Amino acid sequence: MPIFRPIEESEAKGKVKEIYEEIKKVRQITEIPNFWKNLANNTETLERTWNSLQQVMKKGSLDPMIKELIYVAVSITNGCEYCIKSHSLAAKKKGASEEMLNEMIAVVGMANETNRLVEGYQVEVDEIYK
Amino acid sequence: MPIFRPIEESEAKGKVKEIYEEIKKVRQITEIPNFWKNLANNTETLERTWNSLQQVMKKGSLDPMIKELIYVAVSITNGCEYCIKSHSLAAKKKGASEEMLNEMIAVVGMANETNRLVEGYQVEVDEIYK
Amino acid sequence: MPIFRPIEESEAKGKVKEIYEEIKKVRQITEIPNFWKNLANNTETLERTWNSLQQVMKKGSLDPMIKELIYVAVSITNGCEYCIKSHSLAAKKKGASEEMLNEMIAVVGMANETNRLVEGYQVEVDEIYK
Amino acid sequence: MPIFRPIEESEAKGKVKEIYEEIKKVRQITEIPNFWKNLANNTETLERTWNSLQQVMKKGSLDPMIKELIYVAVSITNGCEYCIKSHSLAAKKKGASEEMLNEMIAVVGMANETNRLVEGYQVEVDEIYK
Amino acid sequence: MPIFRPIEESEAKGKVKEIYEEIKKVRQITEIPNFWKNLANNTETLERTWNSLQQVMKKGSLDPMIKELIYVAVSITNGCEYCIKSHSLAAKKKGASEEMLNEMIAVVGMANETNRLVEGYQVEVDEIYK
Amino acid sequence: MPIFRPIEESEAKGKVKEIYEEIKKVRQITEIPNFWKNLANNTETLERTWNSLQQVMKKGSLDPMIKELIYVAVSITNGCEYCIKSHSLAAKKKGASEEMLNEMIAVVGMANETNRLVEGYQVEVDEIYK
Repeated sequence: MPIFRPIEESEAKGKVKEIYEEIKKVRQITEIPNFWKNLANNTETLERTWNSLQQVMKKGSLDPMIKELIYVAVSITNGCEYCIKSHSLAAKKKGASEEMLNEMIAVVGMANETNRLVEGYQVEVDEIYK
Repeated sequence: MPIFRPIEESEAKGKVKEIYEEIKKVRQITEIPNFWKNLANNTETLERTWNSLQQVMKKGSLDPMIKELIYVAVSITNGCEYCIKSHSLAAKKKGASEEMLNEMIAVVGMANETNRLVEGYQVEVDEIYK
Repeated sequence: MPIFRPIEESEAKGKVKEIYEEIKKVRQITEIPNFWKNLANNTETLERTWNSLQQVMKKGSLDPMIKELIYVAVSITNGCEYCIKSHSLAAKKKGASEEMLNEMIAVVGMANETNRLVEGYQVEVDEIYK
Repeated sequence: MPIFRPIEESEAKGKVKEIYEEIKKVRQITEIPNFWKNLANNTETLERTWNSLQQVMKKGSLDPMIKELIYVAVSITNGCEYCIKSHSLAAKKKGASEEMLNEMIAVVGMANETNRLVEGYQVEVDEIYK
Repeated sequence: MPIFRPIEESEAKGKVKEIYEEIKKVRQITEIPNFWKNLANNTETLERTWNSLQQVMKKGSLDPMIKELIYVAVSITNGCEYCIKSHSLAAKKKGASEEMLNEMIAVVGMANETNRLVEGYQVEVDEIYK
Repeated sequence: MPIFRPIEESEAKGKVKEIYEEIKKVRQITEIPNFWKNLANNTETLERTWNSLQQVMKKGSLDPMIKELIYVAVSITNGCEYCIKSHSLAAKKKGASEEMLNEMIAVVGMANETNRLVEGYQVEVDEIYK
């Protein structure tokens, strides 16, 4: 028996219910994803994460689609299946082509390789980068 | 005494010398960065990495500047100082503004947080993402 | 066909059988968890890990329940499902409330975020922390 | 030349100045640590992180000192020097003894070891943990 | 619906078809593993990865079997199930005994533990290692 | 001021002094490395780690030199400078050539790349590997 279980919409109350409504409205979806249903075990975490994500992922100098690609790149590096799947879809919905996702994955692969080549050879930072 | 030392331009020979010349020409720089000088301890690794990076980081569906931002995002997640510093500069040279870098860092922070919230609550993948 | 398979209690012999008996007695359980059944593929690893874990997780200046929470925090950061599930349950058995687990997860999320903000901005260590 | 530099107190303006004042008051310190001075490159990140950290690290079911120990445990796992040093000191200020820090480090070491033993043997989740 | 799906042999064309044939011939297998079928979503990634892996994993100063063990050690540390399973089998096919795999896993466990003890105590590099 | 400081040989007493003597004798060195001097802050951690490392790194089916290479491979993946430097030297002392170290680094780089390609494409485990 898992310690935490998702809080279903039918049992959501007060602040949790309010945030569920806001998520559905802002995201234009009809069902709350499991991520939010689990965070609802801690109302503060639910509210803080929802507000923080909206602020961070909004259009700025970077397009929201690009932000989603960066999000997926981090999630691939951390090996988080749920995060890769949900944010790859989000990237696609915001306009990322399959080719863009393919290219992002290739960059993530190379960066992970060269990050370790740098560690393996213990490369010193060049004066120009200091 | 470190086991490997950078191969200086003055001592580069044959294939290594050739690749050094190509790097300087393609990148329009006058000095070989320490990364390449260290990879030169293994000519195959030097050549394969140089060719692979050129292929992966070239203009495609994604702009090379965006690819650099993704590269830095991975390097931040892995905590690779050299990689963060050199590719942040590369991103800037290719047109990334400080604001873009700020926003990328914010996304990387949030993605690392939510990746762990997903693990902490052991969130199940929704049908819609499968 | 997996290379390693769990060593069932019915086939355990000698040192492995002895340690299985000790695990059941100390932990007051009737069945050996898969973790130990797999380590039994290497008797030395089984014995060393069992002895080390008992030493490290015993009551000291920190309560065993708090040690379990720290264990889960690390396992979340590494994304180890088995470890998260088994040690969350262990924490609960040793007295951790759901609220404590919720708070631990929130700390793990924030620490993972700020760890990367520090890398992203390449923050220098203040004199006061040196 | 680094891309970002810390925003010194003498040059802080508006919202950044306000938050700097609040940090000094709440934390009862006379100088802003480099972490906050760097986040100040992005006012939104500074404000969001300051508010989030206060919420997450406050006294709840878990004591703030225990939360700091968990914070350090994550930072050790991620290898973030700044985070380890600053939050170890914070833990100590909030009452953690050296013995507690020693024990936390031992747990972090063992958890990182067993996390990988689980992966190495590809241990299946027992029914009891599902 | 996943964004990428494996490219089956029956639908492979041109360069992808060629590489599939080469993989089957070189590896002496009759069916393309899912890894390559997925990389085929990006012909450049498929070709570059196939060529790079052949170069890196070939017999050199290190035996290919030892290289596979190192490959698995990294994959365990990163928690990549597919990689652990496929390269453990590859190691076995190239002559690794179960005992060798057991010993490699034990080393990976200890290295992950001591890596974090080093971070936890912030151990300074001895003069002799510089 | 750091929280922990290395325990110098001149101040070592009792069990710590004994282990210091054993380390110097077994390793045939005249000075205790910083790693052990820091672990000495917790006598149990010092003793357990010393005994565990001797057991895990001893000659078995795998040569101690190969075990050191695997150790370094993990340390590169985790980005632990101290561990990379000290165990690279240990590998060399036990007979690893520079070419072997070069090849190990190349494998570590490729494994880290392909681990993330697997995550990026969410590759399903083939029947043959189950």
